[in-house]
Amino acid sequence: MDAGQFRALIQPGADAESCPARNVLDRIGDKWTVLLLAAMAEGPRRFSELHRMVPDISKRMLTQTLRGLERDGLATRRVYSTKPPSVAYALSPLGETVLGPLGGLLGWAAENFIAIRAAREKFDAEDEWSGYAG
Amino acid sequence: MDAGQFRALIQPGADAESCPARNVLDRIGDKWTVLLLAAMAEGPRRFSELHRMVPDISKRMLTQTLRGLERDGLATRRVYSTKPPSVAYALSPLGETVLGPLGGLLGWAAENFIAIRAAREKFDAEDEWSGYAG
Repeated sequence: MDAGQFRALIQPGADAESCPARNVLDRIGDKWTVLLLAAMAEGPRRFSELHRMVPDISKRMLTQTLRGLERDGLATRRVYSTKPPSVAYALSPLGETVLGPLGGLLGWAAENFIAIRAAREKFDAEDEWSGYAG
Repeated sequence: MDAGQFRALIQPGADAESCPARNVLDRIGDKWTVLLLAAMAEGPRRFSELHRMVPDISKRMLTQTLRGLERDGLATRRVYSTKPPSVAYALSPLGETVLGPLGGLLGWAAENFIAIRAAREKFDAEDEWSGYAG
């Protein structure tokens, strides 16, 4: 994607409803959404399994994020008539297609994490210094 | 990236401080961050230019998002001693490297926007129906 294509994606004046960058990426880029998409990459998972894989999410937020993924058509929810009934979540065919591009960005984040943390420390140290000076 | 690599990226039990997926992507995936990275893809931009390119951001949020990008080492801020002094923002070399993977995800969002909106409408219609039923 070249610079002109990026420019086209910004869509000045577009509302969130009609702009993919504003509308879709803001949801897909959410931390919990990303982690749950990755957690379902290997196959269907029960609610409790997903919670074990992402233990720092609250039950309420897990429910809400899965519902958002289902609403966007990226995940499916199946109820099995076991006793007690069990529920499994899986990526939909559309959800599978996001793994490639999402993996690219996650790979970038992992590769550059040290550089980003170093930049933050430097910024915060200089910020503190300018605080003293001013 | 295969499913096992996704699994590794989830890092169960990791805190936000040490997990790239929790820490970096949650920031990079923010709507305004994405739009401003895209707005700087063609070259340095003044504050007022960025505001024209993304007119639906408030001045306060624009300032805050640019500061976040600067802190992460993805953008640089230069002050020029014109009268009045002007300030230009540009991608850093590190910031340039995110355009590829970010473009991949933005391209996916644009390609699948119609499918995602259709899924939402279907979900909301069924949801309303199940509301009437029960």
